[in-house]
Amino acid sequence: MDPTAARERLVSLWREIEDLRSVSAVLEWDQETFMPELGQEARGRQLALLAGLAHERLTATELGEAIAAAAEAAADDPELAAMAREARRQHRRAAAVPAELARELAEATSAALAVWQEARRRSDFPRFRDALARVVELRRRQAAAIDPNRPAYEVLLDEYEPGATVASLEPVFRQLRERLAPLIQAVAASGVEIDESPARGRFPVPAQRAFGLEVAERLGFDFRAGRLDPAPHPFCTTFGRGDVRITWRWQEDDFRPALFGIMHEAGHGLYEQGLPAAWAGSPIGQAVSLGVHESQSRLWENLVGRSRAFWRWATPIFRRHFPDHPTFDPDRIWPALHTVRPSLIRVEADEATYNLHIAIRFDVERRLFAGELEVDDLPAAWNEGYEELLGIRPGNDAEGVLQDIHWAMGAFGYFPTYTLGNLICCQLFESAAAELGDLDQAFAAGDFAPLLGWLRSRVHEAGSRWSAAELVERVSGRPLAADAFLRHIRRIAEEAYGVVAEPA
Amino acid sequence: MDPTAARERLVSLWREIEDLRSVSAVLEWDQETFMPELGQEARGRQLALLAGLAHERLTATELGEAIAAAAEAAADDPELAAMAREARRQHRRAAAVPAELARELAEATSAALAVWQEARRRSDFPRFRDALARVVELRRRQAAAIDPNRPAYEVLLDEYEPGATVASLEPVFRQLRERLAPLIQAVAASGVEIDESPARGRFPVPAQRAFGLEVAERLGFDFRAGRLDPAPHPFCTTFGRGDVRITWRWQEDDFRPALFGIMHEAGHGLYEQGLPAAWAGSPIGQAVSLGVHESQSRLWENLVGRSRAFWRWATPIFRRHFPDHPTFDPDRIWPALHTVRPSLIRVEADEATYNLHIAIRFDVERRLFAGELEVDDLPAAWNEGYEELLGIRPGNDAEGVLQDIHWAMGAFGYFPTYTLGNLICCQLFESAAAELGDLDQAFAAGDFAPLLGWLRSRVHEAGSRWSAAELVERVSGRPLAADAFLRHIRRIAEEAYGVVAEPA
Repeated sequence: MDPTAARERLVSLWREIEDLRSVSAVLEWDQETFMPELGQEARGRQLALLAGLAHERLTATELGEAIAAAAEAAADDPELAAMAREARRQHRRAAAVPAELARELAEATSAALAVWQEARRRSDFPRFRDALARVVELRRRQAAAIDPNRPAYEVLLDEYEPGATVASLEPVFRQLRERLAPLIQAVAASGVEIDESPARGRFPVPAQRAFGLEVAERLGFDFRAGRLDPAPHPFCTTFGRGDVRITWRWQEDDFRPALFGIMHEAGHGLYEQGLPAAWAGSPIGQAVSLGVHESQSRLWENLVGRSRAFWRWATPIFRRHFPDHPTFDPDRIWPALHTVRPSLIRVEADEATYNLHIAIRFDVERRLFAGELEVDDLPAAWNEGYEELLGIRPGNDAEGVLQDIHWAMGAFGYFPTYTLGNLICCQLFESAAAELGDLDQAFAAGDFAPLLGWLRSRVHEAGSRWSAAELVERVSGRPLAADAFLRHIRRIAEEAYGVVAEPA
Repeated sequence: MDPTAARERLVSLWREIEDLRSVSAVLEWDQETFMPELGQEARGRQLALLAGLAHERLTATELGEAIAAAAEAAADDPELAAMAREARRQHRRAAAVPAELARELAEATSAALAVWQEARRRSDFPRFRDALARVVELRRRQAAAIDPNRPAYEVLLDEYEPGATVASLEPVFRQLRERLAPLIQAVAASGVEIDESPARGRFPVPAQRAFGLEVAERLGFDFRAGRLDPAPHPFCTTFGRGDVRITWRWQEDDFRPALFGIMHEAGHGLYEQGLPAAWAGSPIGQAVSLGVHESQSRLWENLVGRSRAFWRWATPIFRRHFPDHPTFDPDRIWPALHTVRPSLIRVEADEATYNLHIAIRFDVERRLFAGELEVDDLPAAWNEGYEELLGIRPGNDAEGVLQDIHWAMGAFGYFPTYTLGNLICCQLFESAAAELGDLDQAFAAGDFAPLLGWLRSRVHEAGSRWSAAELVERVSGRPLAADAFLRHIRRIAEEAYGVVAEPA
């Protein structure tokens, strides 16, 4: 078959899978934003039906044949080869899992979610234990079905971060533990208390929304191809590159959660809006990994949104939206955007401590799936991790091992992608700054187009053409490492706390 | 096969069709309410995919066999017989149309919609002519494919109002023409000018929304199973009986469009929320016809919402929401809710003249499909109808034959369901009043539960167990006729305009 025909055949089958996924995404978005409570029963049935239809198509023999034909026709067509590679990865993962096991997993995670909510409410790990053990067992069986020759945890990792290996992650997390933990403990010991009052006060919700919209639009988020709506938890979802939805929530007494939440989700959204139009509906038209996705959200949130240069542009806009805060200024707000403080709850953690929360989870998950820990050992292992790395210990399981929804959903191997995102964004940002020159000057002028253009051409438009690891290496000229991130955190420790760390 | 197994088999297949329809409904709702403009391309593809999946299932041999088995097993099970009857009707209609013709129709209506918008904007019927002629030809072929032995127009009618016949509609429309037209002309000749100032002024949008929500909730609309959102055109849609969405729009200088729009859509919504839970997902779990649906919306909008008794309850609530209107009272507002005035635009018409707009369309559509009119004759036939029945003549095609979207969509036979709704609601309402006693007293106390309870048990909970005609006859004890509606309009003419009509 000639490459053009092979590509057309593969893409026409794949587009239907993507469209079914987008339809599910619309239903899930509505469920999280607007759906009334009694809509849940029908919605659950509708989502299960759509998942089944997508699974049927993803595992179909016809697709397998189209992939094989594409791979064969792709000798001189690396784009088509990439399409076949990515399609085959997803097809094989789905086809390897027996329908009965998939059904058992869906039931087990649905049950575990309900039990987890109750267990967290009561701070009662034993109540969650059996449901969690069942999910772990089924995920183990699933991993073995997909690839019996690789460690189970690595097979699970691959679902969220294709190509990531335990061998590649371990040294990264080791470096973070060794470098970050003492730095954070030195900051805590410094006795410096940052004045957070510039971030606090009264911030009316409509003004927070208007400010957030103005910022997101200025970053480049296209509201003809997207929306912002309130939701209990901020997220970004995509129904096609012309329709990217982000959500937000707020605190009336602190503008930071809403603004940085919106910048974070807009960062995800900019990636989705920038995916390659020519590959839409094809296996390489999507975001490449959760880690790269998180790198885009964190880049706009942390490296742009918390910078002094950004606030030189944003301060007059802030004052216009919040006229009750006339003394707000870039130098006073900067430290309040860079607090470093060991804490127990991951989702409330700052830039520096966040990755230790993840290091603890990576360590516990890896040991669990390697058979070094049992489910019953999890609370103790968790608490020891916090004691060792952050110097604090959860007072109960609700603020410890029960805090995250991920395990109840079966999402083992997901957490590391958060840290990968934090590392990737710093490494990419250093490359962007090296190539584009003075980004601060552009930010101070409210000009984010050079940075966005750079990300578009280097990252967004690559879709899934390369693996995440290849992409990072192509763009930054070297494999992913923790050093750019550590430089960033050391600058914060020094400038906000006067703590000077030994060089890496 | 025993009836239980036959029913289970039929319902399990049918539920999937209903779920796919509900998924499409979610996507269409989002498209009309929140979707950003660049989302259209992907959305169109997603909706086409879902329509194809539903069509595949509706025409499947497997479903045909399940229907046959159910019909055979239903000898002593009239509920199952009704399920088989309704499933067979839809299955046969869908299966009779060749895929090629269905595709041509979808393309022709899509093209006609675009041309119609432009033609209406320019008030240029000749621009629309060819596209319309193509749609008419394809709908003719479709009708012949479905049932070559019945008049094409009747086959089309049956899509919206199962069981309706030209023979049953003609005398009804004749009676409306003969009785209504002179009455309306007498009202116009009376010289009475109704004072509409109590309905006008400044009505802030948030207050209009809050007032509408309070009214809808009091009528019985369950917001745990529904929502109200803004949209360019008011509508009601259902994703299952636990999730019924209504939309609204407003004018700041007149509270009537928003309030009566909300009451109208809430009336549709009450029907959907009241459909029989036991038959959910089965072929008889849905609303029986568009006519009966419209009877529910019109009943709450016109017979409840425009009544003096309703306003005795609603006036203090109105004043609370609109404190700038302290002199608002039931007697001053009542005439302004009952203006009768010949006009050219259907969607702006009042209760009395509305059905002459429909009579004109029914007449023109019927003659077109009977071969008595050609597409080229439509503008003249339209204008003559307005001259004859309403005594006014469109000045151009934009305010004449081009005003409605229906024909561009191929929806011939849809218009009569509006009038059926108006007649059914008056006939049902007389029966309710006869059985429940003094409804005015209940309305004045804000107690709408007796009426809703009556509608629930007589109409909503019947689903599609009976045809619309059977349902009306069972509930009111006689076949549908125009007399109850005409009594209602004569009361308006007399009380608002002092025009006394000869008895019917």
